[in-house]
Amino acid sequence: MSRKVLVWNEYIGERQPGAARDCYPEGIHETIAAGLRSSLPGTTVETATSHDPEHGIPDEALGAVSVLVWWSHLAHEQVPSSVVETVHDHVLRGMGIILLHSSAESKIFKRLMGTTCSFRWRESGDRELVWVTGPSHPIAAGLPPVIEIPHDETYSEYFDIPDPEAVVFISSFSGGEVFRSGCTFTRGDGKVFFFSPGHETFPVYHDDLVQKVIANAVIWADSGRPHDPRRLFRHSPEGWYSAPTAPLTKEQG
Amino acid sequence: MSRKVLVWNEYIGERQPGAARDCYPEGIHETIAAGLRSSLPGTTVETATSHDPEHGIPDEALGAVSVLVWWSHLAHEQVPSSVVETVHDHVLRGMGIILLHSSAESKIFKRLMGTTCSFRWRESGDRELVWVTGPSHPIAAGLPPVIEIPHDETYSEYFDIPDPEAVVFISSFSGGEVFRSGCTFTRGDGKVFFFSPGHETFPVYHDDLVQKVIANAVIWADSGRPHDPRRLFRHSPEGWYSAPTAPLTKEQG
Amino acid sequence: MSRKVLVWNEYIGERQPGAARDCYPEGIHETIAAGLRSSLPGTTVETATSHDPEHGIPDEALGAVSVLVWWSHLAHEQVPSSVVETVHDHVLRGMGIILLHSSAESKIFKRLMGTTCSFRWRESGDRELVWVTGPSHPIAAGLPPVIEIPHDETYSEYFDIPDPEAVVFISSFSGGEVFRSGCTFTRGDGKVFFFSPGHETFPVYHDDLVQKVIANAVIWADSGRPHDPRRLFRHSPEGWYSAPTAPLTKEQG
Amino acid sequence: MSRKVLVWNEYIGERQPGAARDCYPEGIHETIAAGLRSSLPGTTVETATSHDPEHGIPDEALGAVSVLVWWSHLAHEQVPSSVVETVHDHVLRGMGIILLHSSAESKIFKRLMGTTCSFRWRESGDRELVWVTGPSHPIAAGLPPVIEIPHDETYSEYFDIPDPEAVVFISSFSGGEVFRSGCTFTRGDGKVFFFSPGHETFPVYHDDLVQKVIANAVIWADSGRPHDPRRLFRHSPEGWYSAPTAPLTKEQG
Repeated sequence: MSRKVLVWNEYIGERQPGAARDCYPEGIHETIAAGLRSSLPGTTVETATSHDPEHGIPDEALGAVSVLVWWSHLAHEQVPSSVVETVHDHVLRGMGIILLHSSAESKIFKRLMGTTCSFRWRESGDRELVWVTGPSHPIAAGLPPVIEIPHDETYSEYFDIPDPEAVVFISSFSGGEVFRSGCTFTRGDGKVFFFSPGHETFPVYHDDLVQKVIANAVIWADSGRPHDPRRLFRHSPEGWYSAPTAPLTKEQG
Repeated sequence: MSRKVLVWNEYIGERQPGAARDCYPEGIHETIAAGLRSSLPGTTVETATSHDPEHGIPDEALGAVSVLVWWSHLAHEQVPSSVVETVHDHVLRGMGIILLHSSAESKIFKRLMGTTCSFRWRESGDRELVWVTGPSHPIAAGLPPVIEIPHDETYSEYFDIPDPEAVVFISSFSGGEVFRSGCTFTRGDGKVFFFSPGHETFPVYHDDLVQKVIANAVIWADSGRPHDPRRLFRHSPEGWYSAPTAPLTKEQG
Repeated sequence: MSRKVLVWNEYIGERQPGAARDCYPEGIHETIAAGLRSSLPGTTVETATSHDPEHGIPDEALGAVSVLVWWSHLAHEQVPSSVVETVHDHVLRGMGIILLHSSAESKIFKRLMGTTCSFRWRESGDRELVWVTGPSHPIAAGLPPVIEIPHDETYSEYFDIPDPEAVVFISSFSGGEVFRSGCTFTRGDGKVFFFSPGHETFPVYHDDLVQKVIANAVIWADSGRPHDPRRLFRHSPEGWYSAPTAPLTKEQG
Repeated sequence: MSRKVLVWNEYIGERQPGAARDCYPEGIHETIAAGLRSSLPGTTVETATSHDPEHGIPDEALGAVSVLVWWSHLAHEQVPSSVVETVHDHVLRGMGIILLHSSAESKIFKRLMGTTCSFRWRESGDRELVWVTGPSHPIAAGLPPVIEIPHDETYSEYFDIPDPEAVVFISSFSGGEVFRSGCTFTRGDGKVFFFSPGHETFPVYHDDLVQKVIANAVIWADSGRPHDPRRLFRHSPEGWYSAPTAPLTKEQG
């Protein structure tokens, strides 16, 4: 199917006067979506926020989404568990998901990881250097060896996640911290990418290289969502694979 | 601390007259515990079942457990979510966990994995050959290249789990199926081992080599549970690591 | 750059009268190349054999190759070490490589892996079932859950390779053996895929699904070979990343 | 067998007057060996250098070595290829190996990895912070969250190695660099640990925590070297595993 991206944002911080709104007057989701539209012309890019009906994530809409981009920070707990389960189901059936920055502590990321996903942090505007540690990974395509971000929130190890499939980026901060800032995972049929740069009070998502990372990640995470219904069958008589179109007993328990 | 193992069993199938009780008159947990007591003389081995108070898994008792061995099949859904969360918390803080056979679909395994953990299966008494694919892994210590199990339930790919850290065993079945039958994971401070052989109506857990796998896994999964309280601190001022005993601001949100 | 594939074959067995020539009258390389030309119309596909000048693999030609497909069996040792080093260099600088069947024991595969790459085997025409264990991997795109190969040489664990990045396929054989039959690795900038089905005396490479696996692997292994010359710099003064175009001292020792 | 460690050092820099000899008057190997003898009382610890017969690494001696600790820097190229092959063979048959600092570019490490193992570097005495990113790994047992090294040579990404099995440590340097400073691998039956801290002109190996890392790594890398001769058999008749002691045809080609 043709690629469709949904950029979802809780959209809270940027609605108050202050640094977040100064950085992202239309909301972080619109800045990210504009970058994707520019770099991926054949891709449909839509946005949604927690203020939309069904928290912006209706089940029927997700069926057509190739990759969901997620940003949340202040209101992780206000995302209903039913929404989390819906997103989780779609990921396992092949929808890619990209989790940005503080989304490390979103319910959906913790649901996918099975760990606390906690980390150390400090809001002191440290310089962040994002080092490419997986130069042949598709998410690093076209990037220089280092992305320099003048000021960002500091995220620091220990980052309580399962061992990633690939650590595409590792960041240092001027205070001496390190963080696995770009990590890939697979869950079911779904590709998962976590990328930590991007506090709401710094213009990180306006950076061309950061936008390129997110666009590369969209391409990588788009599996085409190829659902083979035979994967749903559980009870399997001997030799079923030699007659794969024969009616099988479908058991879910 | 000295090693303490708790072998937990839902203990349902073996209480009815039939093949399960014939194979395991005292319950699968007692067969497994007897094997561990024999091969790990310095280890305290206790048992519990779903019929004990607090489902056999009181929070206060788990604090002293190095490794929990888990067996469930018919009553996954009857394990209260609060018990699942308690076990999950202890795993993340360093308690090892070994999940056997149909425990692949237990709530706690799915909670740790973040996937459906579903697989194909067939009860036809196929011969299972358990091939060692990680000969240098501690869980394979002292094993021959293949463990031959005359009859077992067939478990088959696709097994919907995250990519394991190590695939120590891969099984074939006489009907042609394959299964990643011995898989390791880490979640937080906790070591996780899944091992698929062992249907309740076959005497698999009486096999010396199967018992050796479980004993090796207990040794591997025992982390000593070394909780460094400094890992609980979230907000971290610059340079905190140079004065690690200074009082830090502990923030959880 | 546009994609160019070179299919290299030692081309020995198929030149003698017998089962190999019956299966592959023009050589295995021509069968594989024809399949790739059919399924990847925008890709240039060329062939070479050990009978061509410079063993069919001149250094200058490899610079334009996106992905090298390799088949060798009887004459691993006759590939000059200088050719092995040339291929190795190109892989580390971004050329993909796909190693088929008995190429598991080629010098170049052992050079890339750092292990013996040895395995058990038997020529008894067992049925091979190739199970998809990485359904979301690009190499498995569009495949059914199992590829059934009526007769193949048996390859069996323990397969002495480093832990693969992804095990896309695991095979069973009718004699009970299992084998990690589709494995991915990264070495430097280069993607590596090993795929075991395909003995020269069985028509395995004429199978549509086997051809699809190889075509998918070509797409996956094609990195675009994006060489960033800054990756060659070794000695790095403080802050070099803030002025990455400044002349640096290039030191190789 | 009881554990025996051999600490090998090229022993060149510390023999000249200067900072290296000031830091390590008896050579780096003696400092490391003294630390191991102190922390692992039941372990036999011996030392050897490139000035000993057979480069200090005779084949017959390695058969009794559980874990080899390796330090080289100025004279990588002077280690004969035959010595490299001997060490490589022993690693594949179960000898653990720990490679320190500049040994990243030793012939044996490159032989085991299959890549260039190159990296960026700078001798400017930066502060190095070694962050524990694998707190449940046995090599991190008993360590604080961060090891602070006042001055060290800077090692920096991109570090051209295959994806490690575990990244136990990631370092930052005061100039902003990051480096995967503690990485584990398995090759054949052998465990491999690379640990980067430790330039010869800084007293890094006198640090208690650095010594603890090396002692932990020795315990982890000691496999017991359990050689199952049945792993040497290549050609395997059907059903061989049911009569594993029957004489098999041993074929090496």
